Amino acid sequence: MPFPEPLVFELEALLGDRFSMTEALRAQHGAGESFHPIEMPGAVTFPRSTEEVAATVRVCAAHAVPIIPFGAGTSLEGHVQAVQGGVCIATSQLTELIELNPEDMDCRVESGMTRKTLEGHLKGSGLFFPIDPGADASLGGMAATGASGTTTVRYGTMRENVLGLTVVLADGRVIRTGGRARKSSAGYDLTKLFLGSEGTLGVITEILIRLHGIPEATSAAVCSFSTLKDAVDAVTLTVQMGVGVARAELLDEVQMDAVNQFSDFSYPVQPTLFFEFHGSPAGVEEQANTVAEIASDLGATDFEWATMAEDRTKLWTARHEAYYAALALRPGCRGWATDVCVPISRLAECMLATRSDIDSEGLVAPIVSHAGDGNFHVSFIVDPDDEEEMGRARSVNKKMIMRAIEMGGTCTGEHGVGYGKMPYLLAEHGEAVSTMRSIKQALDPQKIMNPGKIFS
Amino acid sequence: MPFPEPLVFELEALLGDRFSMTEALRAQHGAGESFHPIEMPGAVTFPRSTEEVAATVRVCAAHAVPIIPFGAGTSLEGHVQAVQGGVCIATSQLTELIELNPEDMDCRVESGMTRKTLEGHLKGSGLFFPIDPGADASLGGMAATGASGTTTVRYGTMRENVLGLTVVLADGRVIRTGGRARKSSAGYDLTKLFLGSEGTLGVITEILIRLHGIPEATSAAVCSFSTLKDAVDAVTLTVQMGVGVARAELLDEVQMDAVNQFSDFSYPVQPTLFFEFHGSPAGVEEQANTVAEIASDLGATDFEWATMAEDRTKLWTARHEAYYAALALRPGCRGWATDVCVPISRLAECMLATRSDIDSEGLVAPIVSHAGDGNFHVSFIVDPDDEEEMGRARSVNKKMIMRAIEMGGTCTGEHGVGYGKMPYLLAEHGEAVSTMRSIKQALDPQKIMNPGKIFS
Repeated sequence: MPFPEPLVFELEALLGDRFSMTEALRAQHGAGESFHPIEMPGAVTFPRSTEEVAATVRVCAAHAVPIIPFGAGTSLEGHVQAVQGGVCIATSQLTELIELNPEDMDCRVESGMTRKTLEGHLKGSGLFFPIDPGADASLGGMAATGASGTTTVRYGTMRENVLGLTVVLADGRVIRTGGRARKSSAGYDLTKLFLGSEGTLGVITEILIRLHGIPEATSAAVCSFSTLKDAVDAVTLTVQMGVGVARAELLDEVQMDAVNQFSDFSYPVQPTLFFEFHGSPAGVEEQANTVAEIASDLGATDFEWATMAEDRTKLWTARHEAYYAALALRPGCRGWATDVCVPISRLAECMLATRSDIDSEGLVAPIVSHAGDGNFHVSFIVDPDDEEEMGRARSVNKKMIMRAIEMGGTCTGEHGVGYGKMPYLLAEHGEAVSTMRSIKQALDPQKIMNPGKIFS
Repeated sequence: MPFPEPLVFELEALLGDRFSMTEALRAQHGAGESFHPIEMPGAVTFPRSTEEVAATVRVCAAHAVPIIPFGAGTSLEGHVQAVQGGVCIATSQLTELIELNPEDMDCRVESGMTRKTLEGHLKGSGLFFPIDPGADASLGGMAATGASGTTTVRYGTMRENVLGLTVVLADGRVIRTGGRARKSSAGYDLTKLFLGSEGTLGVITEILIRLHGIPEATSAAVCSFSTLKDAVDAVTLTVQMGVGVARAELLDEVQMDAVNQFSDFSYPVQPTLFFEFHGSPAGVEEQANTVAEIASDLGATDFEWATMAEDRTKLWTARHEAYYAALALRPGCRGWATDVCVPISRLAECMLATRSDIDSEGLVAPIVSHAGDGNFHVSFIVDPDDEEEMGRARSVNKKMIMRAIEMGGTCTGEHGVGYGKMPYLLAEHGEAVSTMRSIKQALDPQKIMNPGKIFS
């Protein structure tokens, strides 16, 4: 769909050279990090303030042209692909720290700031932002997908760590949701509605973030199990006993084999747990001892633990490099990272059935799990041009998702729907999807906000 | 507004003697626990299943008659008053435990179950439900107001502890939101939208609740401070240092005087903190020591702590009886419990300014604070028939709310809007209120769901 000419004039007048129709920029803003093919927007804009975003949205709305918000481009399910063309609103120039309130342990940032940049700003404050999805995502993107990651078992997801948002609505009006109070019962929780709405209800321009005190001490531990079930049980027991582990990551034997090859480790090729503990020095020691005991009762071997930063980093390298290690299994291929989340009592069963499907289809696909949450990732290492292989991967993915839903779980624990998981939303939520559609219709009657995502 | 005759026939046919128009039942279901006057619904219904709720809603919708959901009647801001008449849907016969999954630490209950009944069901499971708003509220009511209470500083509010809901929509359709996975990024977070919607978007009939492991050890501590600021600072430092206190309650000197009189205590008539610690035996001891040190640095006196259940109960009696002690200050009067929540850095200032307003208006009104959250309650002890006195209380209340909002806080931290806080929603949320209205309009176009609440 070609742009109406006045739209181009109006956006150029508004943004000058921060409006671009060059193919390079359009291509760069037409895809995330997964295998989903590039679908270029017609133009890319780089507003520098909420007001400029609002003005851009008003121009697009006046011409009924689609708007695709774009953060750091690290999404995995086709969230940023311009499937119906339109104008990309890139937040890469919205990167200010607006306020930092150490005493209240909160800050307000513009949505294009990445989490690592925020980390930099927090240096010396005694505070940190715990959500770690792996990639150096923008905080706006993380809010828009309801992101989480390795520390959710202790610190929650974006939903528990965002206090409020500034959002430009589909008609260009600007609203502020939430507030700096730690809790509120004043009206509908719009903050939580926009968290995870993937740009389909508005453009997030500012985020009010809850921070946490840096723990006095941190320690880490790694141990291997002869079965996946034992490893999962170790995490379940740990959580049930109220040990506040900060991270509990499970790598299956295929993933362990990959990291051994990639980084010259010699870990046992077995299901392996990586723990991190936060607290007082005595507290983390107690946590580690409790977990060591639980793990040993379940037959764990090679229980290693480390309190010094350097040793911890070494211990966690295998986990941090998991995705690159997986990619290295088939040089030249792409990674397709998918995720589901199930009640933890079904986690081992769901992972094992998925492993069996992967193996019987002859696919290469390590599995990594945020085991404390019941969330796991399959990284299919595939050749996107090999349609037959992609078909096998799609079939395993579909089976895994339907199994997770049947177990009371979800088609995506943290990656979001984008267009990749769209076919499964109805299977998971049934009639509730029509309520989501009613909300979409109410807030975006022209259907210009990131169309073709979440819903068809 | 008299009922259309067919409505009466249809509801009688549906529910038999669980449909009632007797004055006693209508009066009983026309008010909560605060001073707001009774406003009777035209009829009260007692459905026994989600299907019966749905059928009741369909009948009311067909006749465009208002519906007021009613839990245990413990609300404080006029949530259940039938301000436009209509049919009350009481959930007192929706009290089943549908499923309890100890391994996943969750359960699904019908919405009329009270939190103390749930506590009973959990006996022997090693699990507990932490949210404690004081009253033995229904879990549906707690969900509908986004309730919280004394343990929020550690365990969060209903928003962090409800995984999913079954909701009957305004047209009688039934949806299930959320799911048993610990987290999900699959579509809009409808669970969080209905939490805190106060019956204005649908009737909650089932709640999927997140449970927690009972801590191995619990201990409690009480200490007094010469200034309110010091007491608040003690809590702030505690939270900043990452000490995971389970409760941190602050009673001001007026409230302490009231509990001394009521229960024959001899606590210093000073701002006083009540702490509770959950963890391992060594962990709670360490927490208590850290807090004792912080408190002592801030000049705290009379630091008492207790690990045995009996001693803890004794220590916490003053806190638990605070409201009754306040009422006893003026026998025959009513309590008007109001609340605001501010960033914790402003808590002492906001409480002190409010205390000064109370005193200069010559009102009787102890203050209690969930200090870790920045949330505090003023209990005006008033004669609702004394219009002049009520005017002074309203004026102090309004000043307090506007001050809280100006400080970046909220007009209600946990009581909800009802109709009592309705005038302040716009001051707090501005343009965002129109987004709330759009959602209301989309989900309840006939405006029959608890009309006259949250919005005018």
